[in-house]
Amino acid sequence: MSPEITGKLAVIGLGSMGNGIAASMLRAEMAVSGFDPSAAALATFADAGGRPGLDPADASRDASVVVVVVVNAAQTETVLFGPQGVVSVMQPGGVVVSSATMAPSDARRFAARCHEAGVLYLDAPISGGAGRAATGELTVMASGSADAFARAEYVLQVIATTVYRLGDEAGVGASFKMINQLLAGIHIAAACEAITFATRLGLDINKVFEVITASAGNSWMFQNRIPHVLAGDYRPASAVDIFAKDLGIVADMGLQAKFPTPLAASALQMFLMTSAAGMGRDDDASVARLIAQVTGIELPGISRARP
Amino acid sequence: MSPEITGKLAVIGLGSMGNGIAASMLRAEMAVSGFDPSAAALATFADAGGRPGLDPADASRDASVVVVVVVNAAQTETVLFGPQGVVSVMQPGGVVVSSATMAPSDARRFAARCHEAGVLYLDAPISGGAGRAATGELTVMASGSADAFARAEYVLQVIATTVYRLGDEAGVGASFKMINQLLAGIHIAAACEAITFATRLGLDINKVFEVITASAGNSWMFQNRIPHVLAGDYRPASAVDIFAKDLGIVADMGLQAKFPTPLAASALQMFLMTSAAGMGRDDDASVARLIAQVTGIELPGISRARP
Repeated sequence: MSPEITGKLAVIGLGSMGNGIAASMLRAEMAVSGFDPSAAALATFADAGGRPGLDPADASRDASVVVVVVVNAAQTETVLFGPQGVVSVMQPGGVVVSSATMAPSDARRFAARCHEAGVLYLDAPISGGAGRAATGELTVMASGSADAFARAEYVLQVIATTVYRLGDEAGVGASFKMINQLLAGIHIAAACEAITFATRLGLDINKVFEVITASAGNSWMFQNRIPHVLAGDYRPASAVDIFAKDLGIVADMGLQAKFPTPLAASALQMFLMTSAAGMGRDDDASVARLIAQVTGIELPGISRARP
Repeated sequence: MSPEITGKLAVIGLGSMGNGIAASMLRAEMAVSGFDPSAAALATFADAGGRPGLDPADASRDASVVVVVVVNAAQTETVLFGPQGVVSVMQPGGVVVSSATMAPSDARRFAARCHEAGVLYLDAPISGGAGRAATGELTVMASGSADAFARAEYVLQVIATTVYRLGDEAGVGASFKMINQLLAGIHIAAACEAITFATRLGLDINKVFEVITASAGNSWMFQNRIPHVLAGDYRPASAVDIFAKDLGIVADMGLQAKFPTPLAASALQMFLMTSAAGMGRDDDASVARLIAQVTGIELPGISRARP
């Protein structure tokens, strides 16, 4: 370990992403504390060698680096500044690595409050999914001061293969992540629209997958999500409600900036409809299932919903 | 040449795709006739060693294989069955390789009329762009009878690296192509929405291109078209009006089948708005230019449209 590391390390939020991040740190023989309100998530973390805390503050006392990988800005705010928040108990000069997807304005606000409390803040949203979290191969879209980067660096090195340094102020990393989510959300909804329309046209959708992934109509999301539809497997790799939330943030940002995002708005409505139909916690490829239910087409694992 | 080839070869429509296809055939030492209403296109074809015809019929008399690579179904119909149409003058049992993008119902209709006239029909839309047409590396999404495939095969071999055999009836190839165009059109519009929104958020859009192309938000079209925006170069590699047309076909197909395609419908409106603003013949990445003009942001090569 580099000489300036004198404090402890913590990961707050031990879902599929957080537990993967913690596991990568533990594999690198770092001592890691952690907290999650789910007892099951905490137990998984303890089994991997982590020290479970009683609450965020207990896990983060005197910590030099605290990775916060919860669902959204509201949870991040509670973790940082709530009654059992981490900022007031961390090592002075320690760094919060803030990885939840949120609006850039929230990232800037949290960074300012951390700064007032004598704690560094790295705006560090992540990309790559649970699989790459577990193997320490995430992509981090980060912005913050040189001090914040320096302080977080040895943790970033073990959890990510690519760390983009996108600017010296919080908010830039969050903005990049939101642009990625805008595209990813549209591409998932478009993939579901295309594969269901192909079904309606009577095409062999396995063949459609083969042809499209080799053609100009391909996207990372088409290639990644359509196999769930072909397998009829809607167990959540990433849930519908995640993209309802993220495209909701895009919509708010557009309103705030008075900037139109018509395709993202259409895609948001598709995720909301799918969530409203009771599939919010299922895989986001369930947009295809919604369309199948509405239109009465057959998809693998789903019988005709209408005669 | 295989023994059954006793007729001549022709390419009707010598735009960037047709001239590339003809050039690939000429490189393979095939004798090729051709026709295009543009004298300049005909001259390019003649310079490459082709025999220019006076009209489609003149170019296709006694032809064994006629590749028709015009803009749409209406032009294809005229070339096949109009006063100077090719079907009535081709070698009996010859094959029409029909490569314009069109609705599956048009492909089926043309195939039936060819069949009545004793001519084979291969529903053979192409993908890959002018560059790959010129190098003989197209992708062909084809359907038709075994006879039609057999008759066209030695031509397909020199113009394409991948020939998908998607079914034994006309219409299937066209359906695959329309699914590809649905996705490609949405992805172009989404790429333009994303890059302009990133500009509004104050991001370095060259960096956005670097990060997104390595992330889950990537698409083939984002990677291919955004460099035009970064360079401020809107000379048409593929024009706005092509996607206005193709997403218009998707919209018609959806109406016909009573099947909703909300994202394709939104993307169509973006292309129509861009065309209505006078950019119909410019590169389809001009959707970004339209958004810049409307919202007053600056893009490379485009100064602020509003104070």
